[in-house]
Amino acid sequence: MRHMKPVEPTAVTIDDEFWSPRLETNRDVTIEYQYDQLESSGCLENFRRAAAGETGDFEGMWFADSDAYKWLEAASYVLATADEPDPELIGRVDDVINLVAAAQDDDGYLNTYFTLEEPDKRWTNLNTLHELYCAGHLIEAAVAHHRATGKTSLLDVATAFADHIDDVFPDEIDGAPGHQEIELALVKLARVTGEARYVDLAEYFIEIRGHDDRLEWELDNPEGLAGYDPDGDDMIEGARGVFWEDGEYDGTYAQAHAPLEEQEAVEGHAVRAMYFFAGVADVAAETGDEDLLAHLERLWENMTTKRLYITGGIGSAHEGERFTEDYDLPNEMAYAETCAAIGSIFWNQRMLELTGDPKYADLIERTLYNGVLAGVSLDGTEFFYDNRLASDGSHSRSGWFHCACCPPNVARLFASLGRYLYTVDGRDCYVNQYIGGTASVPLEKGNLTLTQETALPWEGDVTLEVTAPNQTTATLHLRIPEWCDDVSVTVNGETVSTADEGYVTLERTWDDDRISATFDHSTTLVAGHPAVAATAGRLAITRGPLVYCLETVDNDRPVHQYRIDSTTEFTPTHRSDLLEGVTILEADATVPSLEGWDGKLYRQADETKTRTEPVTAIPYYAWDNRDSCPMRVWIDWP
Amino acid sequence: MRHMKPVEPTAVTIDDEFWSPRLETNRDVTIEYQYDQLESSGCLENFRRAAAGETGDFEGMWFADSDAYKWLEAASYVLATADEPDPELIGRVDDVINLVAAAQDDDGYLNTYFTLEEPDKRWTNLNTLHELYCAGHLIEAAVAHHRATGKTSLLDVATAFADHIDDVFPDEIDGAPGHQEIELALVKLARVTGEARYVDLAEYFIEIRGHDDRLEWELDNPEGLAGYDPDGDDMIEGARGVFWEDGEYDGTYAQAHAPLEEQEAVEGHAVRAMYFFAGVADVAAETGDEDLLAHLERLWENMTTKRLYITGGIGSAHEGERFTEDYDLPNEMAYAETCAAIGSIFWNQRMLELTGDPKYADLIERTLYNGVLAGVSLDGTEFFYDNRLASDGSHSRSGWFHCACCPPNVARLFASLGRYLYTVDGRDCYVNQYIGGTASVPLEKGNLTLTQETALPWEGDVTLEVTAPNQTTATLHLRIPEWCDDVSVTVNGETVSTADEGYVTLERTWDDDRISATFDHSTTLVAGHPAVAATAGRLAITRGPLVYCLETVDNDRPVHQYRIDSTTEFTPTHRSDLLEGVTILEADATVPSLEGWDGKLYRQADETKTRTEPVTAIPYYAWDNRDSCPMRVWIDWP
Repeated sequence: MRHMKPVEPTAVTIDDEFWSPRLETNRDVTIEYQYDQLESSGCLENFRRAAAGETGDFEGMWFADSDAYKWLEAASYVLATADEPDPELIGRVDDVINLVAAAQDDDGYLNTYFTLEEPDKRWTNLNTLHELYCAGHLIEAAVAHHRATGKTSLLDVATAFADHIDDVFPDEIDGAPGHQEIELALVKLARVTGEARYVDLAEYFIEIRGHDDRLEWELDNPEGLAGYDPDGDDMIEGARGVFWEDGEYDGTYAQAHAPLEEQEAVEGHAVRAMYFFAGVADVAAETGDEDLLAHLERLWENMTTKRLYITGGIGSAHEGERFTEDYDLPNEMAYAETCAAIGSIFWNQRMLELTGDPKYADLIERTLYNGVLAGVSLDGTEFFYDNRLASDGSHSRSGWFHCACCPPNVARLFASLGRYLYTVDGRDCYVNQYIGGTASVPLEKGNLTLTQETALPWEGDVTLEVTAPNQTTATLHLRIPEWCDDVSVTVNGETVSTADEGYVTLERTWDDDRISATFDHSTTLVAGHPAVAATAGRLAITRGPLVYCLETVDNDRPVHQYRIDSTTEFTPTHRSDLLEGVTILEADATVPSLEGWDGKLYRQADETKTRTEPVTAIPYYAWDNRDSCPMRVWIDWP
Repeated sequence: MRHMKPVEPTAVTIDDEFWSPRLETNRDVTIEYQYDQLESSGCLENFRRAAAGETGDFEGMWFADSDAYKWLEAASYVLATADEPDPELIGRVDDVINLVAAAQDDDGYLNTYFTLEEPDKRWTNLNTLHELYCAGHLIEAAVAHHRATGKTSLLDVATAFADHIDDVFPDEIDGAPGHQEIELALVKLARVTGEARYVDLAEYFIEIRGHDDRLEWELDNPEGLAGYDPDGDDMIEGARGVFWEDGEYDGTYAQAHAPLEEQEAVEGHAVRAMYFFAGVADVAAETGDEDLLAHLERLWENMTTKRLYITGGIGSAHEGERFTEDYDLPNEMAYAETCAAIGSIFWNQRMLELTGDPKYADLIERTLYNGVLAGVSLDGTEFFYDNRLASDGSHSRSGWFHCACCPPNVARLFASLGRYLYTVDGRDCYVNQYIGGTASVPLEKGNLTLTQETALPWEGDVTLEVTAPNQTTATLHLRIPEWCDDVSVTVNGETVSTADEGYVTLERTWDDDRISATFDHSTTLVAGHPAVAATAGRLAITRGPLVYCLETVDNDRPVHQYRIDSTTEFTPTHRSDLLEGVTILEADATVPSLEGWDGKLYRQADETKTRTEPVTAIPYYAWDNRDSCPMRVWIDWP
């Protein structure tokens, strides 16, 4: 097992033609807008009222506290990476932390739904009420805030709650949470506090899952549980719907159907699965448990070869936001929740650190540029919860959601994007993502400064200026992206040829050097596995890390009328005036002739004709940023 | 305007290899089974309790009375066409009629929902409570029962209720019903009683629709209306959902958005639309109003060129069971309610009678063999409410429905199938449907006896023995089906060639003659209009009147893997051992090679290969009669 460490966002400054505007929008618009939503949704008011000792009238979903925590986490990353201090944001973060701290009970417990609505029923409903989930997000926010500012104001709150949880579990309550999140958070807390018992607690929550019958017992004995409504129209009844199959308890929804070691496929609610596997990877990293890693590798294999959209999206079913069956990847009805894609990045980054296998970085790149980036509008104020791969034009992003998990998740991912660029291990530095900027990379023999410039995702050129004040000896590993068939690299103008297991490997004593890499970046037409019904007889267009799509607004005909084949040649043109700058792809496509159709709805096929007309594709992430119109990723393949 | 008359089912004996077993199943199994459902669903108990003066505890949907009426209508057709009297069925019909009669109020009003639940709120909620709809079905049943038996026991009940309605509308209540049905029923009642005022009342209901604001007013002022629940979780609130668009009243759901003369497209709830147009056609027939016919022809044009499934199914949206937009004809999500297809047959038969245009008989045939026949299982006990054109294997027929409109509608259509075979007009007789049996056809110059034999739908051969005791001069018109490119006809062995506007026309003095017709019946591959997204890049297989489909159970691969093109040659084979006897179609299809896919979910398209493998198609109507499995009507077209 490897133990690569990421270069933390605090050590990475992003300066990138593609990403910098997005991160600015995230900082200046999205995070600002989301703060307003915390107020207007009643989320902050819940904390205020809990702090004031009021009761009743909790607003929002019962896990609304986590919205505030995710906002605090995102805002902390912004503070950590800001060019200069932002007193207004610092003040606002402190105000929210003060609210949170004031709402905490004396024994460390903190959850405004329970404090306001059901103070006597803590920990009675682990399936549904998400106390541990909210605690996990509190801890993640606290760790981020502490790392960003050095302050302990939120960390103290989080530690007190974690200690309370450590007291309660498993001595008073023995069971796993319905929604994972606490596991990965506890490992973060252990790392920042040095307290190994938080790792033990995380390990407990992982090991108990699928071994105990607590979740089943709760669903069978709802009376007296928090959230119980004798009319049956309650959260418990709702949860039964996803936890029941043919009248029998089936914990698949929360990955509680079997112990981890017996799980052969990624199952159930996709976000829960991703947070779970991320937490398992963290515990494996801390304990060195190779078995845990083997379980994760088995599940990753299932997900990526049978249950993954070409965009990196996962969890195809709207009902239960869940994985369904192998090869069930519908387009129009795709769920592919933005949060699940983000969770996949969390998990894959940990797998990369534990293995050094670039396939995990490949999937992060694919997911980031497609499955996640499509989830937020170019202006940063509208979001997709579900990311369809085809639309009849009736599906558009929304400003906010009653269950508002995705927007703050996008915000915290983007605000911490720097952590996905580089990993280090002894004297090895891995360049995992090609995003421009400067990083200070701590290696065994001394620090390197890496200044990256890249034209990605539009062109495959990357340069890295390496500065080592003390002539550091180190090995740089440049990931060769999965989409790249041909790579050429020079160091200080001299061609080098040192590819090794998916990386270009450059070992030398660095001084003041310049690496230039060109990754072949041509348009590729992609087919789906024959077992996938939704891609049968269809092709997808990709170029570099980007999946493309057709939107009717760019084309003379409805998108379903275009057919391309595996030899269709697309011409890329960068259009800085379009969609905040995109490279479009144009080709000649086959379209049906309208001749002879007058007054007919069905007709003998051999009487119909086709013709050739131009077609324009845009990056999938940029769809639905103009007037709503039909869209397709998978194009008919004649 | 023509005034063709159908040869009534009482004058037609069906003796047909394809249809006779189905009609027997309908009579012996379906109608029996449905009677049991009337008991077990509480429908008959509602009548009993209303008759006994009890209150409360109405069971089923608020229009459940219509289930009993539809059963009475179907059973009456069975009595009318039985080879010999069926004392048990006669007794059961009389018992149900006695129940119905006993539940009628003294003033003629009859609706057990109101009698049991809201006796003071009659006629307050025309949108939703379906009193006039139930009245219409009562009248249809009464007319069928009277024609079958000569008895007036049910006709007296229906007439008393119709007279009560005639008193109330429009003097006390001025408005159209939310669900049409009363219009066509009143015309039937006028025809059997000779009372023209029922036609006037039908005409009133047609003319007021889209002209008044009664339906809008009800939705705006729900308090005091029947079905009103102050918590808003009531029928009225449910109705608002379909009658509202962007916060504004929109009567489209019930074809009340505009007067008939301003309606340019078939809109709204498809069953309502079909019953409406059938009623309009009936009024046009009685009043000779050419304008009404012109409106219907305009709407028919829209439906058949833009909003019709290849199966004859209509109304593509589950939400609202309604027509959506031109060319919106999804496969997996097709609604295509069985009742709507049946309603289309009702309407088209009337259009045929008013025009003599065989295109209406063509659509009846297409709808009967596909859109309707698929709605009932081969054993007659399970039903599709919605008829999808593709399935992932998770969709199957059900034994009964809470809203049980479709099963009894199938039963009454099949039990009265004889009426769709022949129409007469003076000395002309039209052979509209090719179904074997004997008919006594009354013509101007005397009766003909027609004995039809046919191998349809499997082969295109039809013989007609014409017997005329008095050497009757008459013109026989044999419809040339839309699916037939080539027809050859002999009379007494001599070839004749007298096609005229879709008919083979045979004028002579008939004595004892034999007509043989062979309609070319080859397999045809059909394309959908380019504007239809769901059929883009796909072909459907048809043979004669039958649409075919692929079911996985007959094939080695999942159905989505097969590709055929417009030149693929299918070989028909009749398999008497399969699905109660079907002609299957077999061909060589293109399938993807599985080579090189190991461990890959996506791959460069130009690396993939195809091969040729056999594929088997079965008639669409016969799908889902074995274990549930994936099915497709529209096959990929490479």
